[in-house]
Amino acid sequence: MIPFPAINRLCALYRLLCDLQESGVERISSADLGKKLGVGAHNIRKDIAFLGVSSSSASGYDIKGLKQLISEKFEFNTEKKACIVGLGRLGTAIMERKDLCGGEFHIIAGFDSNINRLETISSSISLYPAYSITEVVRRLRIELAIIAVPACVAQDVADKLIDGGIKGILNFAPVIVKLDNKEIFIKNMDISGELRVLSAQIKNSIR
Amino acid sequence: MIPFPAINRLCALYRLLCDLQESGVERISSADLGKKLGVGAHNIRKDIAFLGVSSSSASGYDIKGLKQLISEKFEFNTEKKACIVGLGRLGTAIMERKDLCGGEFHIIAGFDSNINRLETISSSISLYPAYSITEVVRRLRIELAIIAVPACVAQDVADKLIDGGIKGILNFAPVIVKLDNKEIFIKNMDISGELRVLSAQIKNSIR
Repeated sequence: MIPFPAINRLCALYRLLCDLQESGVERISSADLGKKLGVGAHNIRKDIAFLGVSSSSASGYDIKGLKQLISEKFEFNTEKKACIVGLGRLGTAIMERKDLCGGEFHIIAGFDSNINRLETISSSISLYPAYSITEVVRRLRIELAIIAVPACVAQDVADKLIDGGIKGILNFAPVIVKLDNKEIFIKNMDISGELRVLSAQIKNSIR
Repeated sequence: MIPFPAINRLCALYRLLCDLQESGVERISSADLGKKLGVGAHNIRKDIAFLGVSSSSASGYDIKGLKQLISEKFEFNTEKKACIVGLGRLGTAIMERKDLCGGEFHIIAGFDSNINRLETISSSISLYPAYSITEVVRRLRIELAIIAVPACVAQDVADKLIDGGIKGILNFAPVIVKLDNKEIFIKNMDISGELRVLSAQIKNSIR
């Protein structure tokens, strides 16, 4: 098991390697990777060791090869099925994002408790009433869910998703959703919490 | 200067202390705080030391007092002015969030490049055309901005905000915005990136 902070850094590294590859860079040292990610070179080498690579050569890491290793380790090249719950403005805006309509992630189902609203949304994605979340998630073997419902129903929605066998949840509802099951992962996209971190960084930088 | 990972943890701690206080808990040990945050007790004590507290007593930390210390250190009790750029579905959904209309954060301005759209939005928040971003941010001394525009204009919007003197940016555009200025802070709310981290955690947990 790779510890969570290392997974987080490896995902940031993967994103950086994609950018570097697009700009035509072929090799990079752990020192330069560290600088770009704001992490020590030693940490970068330790993280990369989890992929089974012992050390970089004198000329640094081969970007394409390293990207491939991360992708294989975490199966990024397999398309993941996702769904979205809550088809208000936030939910429909996310549903139409091009980076979530196939490739690495594919939103294949949308849910809303308001059946009249379902009828007004024109989408290529299959839409279902919220009471069928558990059944549809199970039947279509959906792995990931994005929650975009009001705060008061977010925990209930999460519980229904988990009953259906969901493995990961991205929560945009303005409430911290908690899970007891340690095999299901959640990321709370906490807008006021993120603004608070920015405020703290700003205050901390003024001396 | 407190290092960024410690700031991040102290903000998570602040949130936890708010929750604990609401549930009526009065004291807690660093060990229990660590468990709840998924961090070692030693780290918690080190982070709290940045606040000028040397150690907890045998009965643990006083929750109200500790919350107050974090709040004072980072000035969480001062209302921060914020603005939102991009008033499509995502932007207007965020604009109406109750946690962002006063108190800790207050969205006091909205911007969109489409002047016709500005006229159709009924909001208690003052709305402005995008060309006036720099001027309005400077005049109203807005500290924080939320970007909810299409990917292709996000960097340009960030540059205009920075020209106006913005200090922190939360970016929802599906592109990583980069800043050269080290005194301005950005958090990219990278949806596919977050789904990728969840996928990696899921894969990592299957043995």
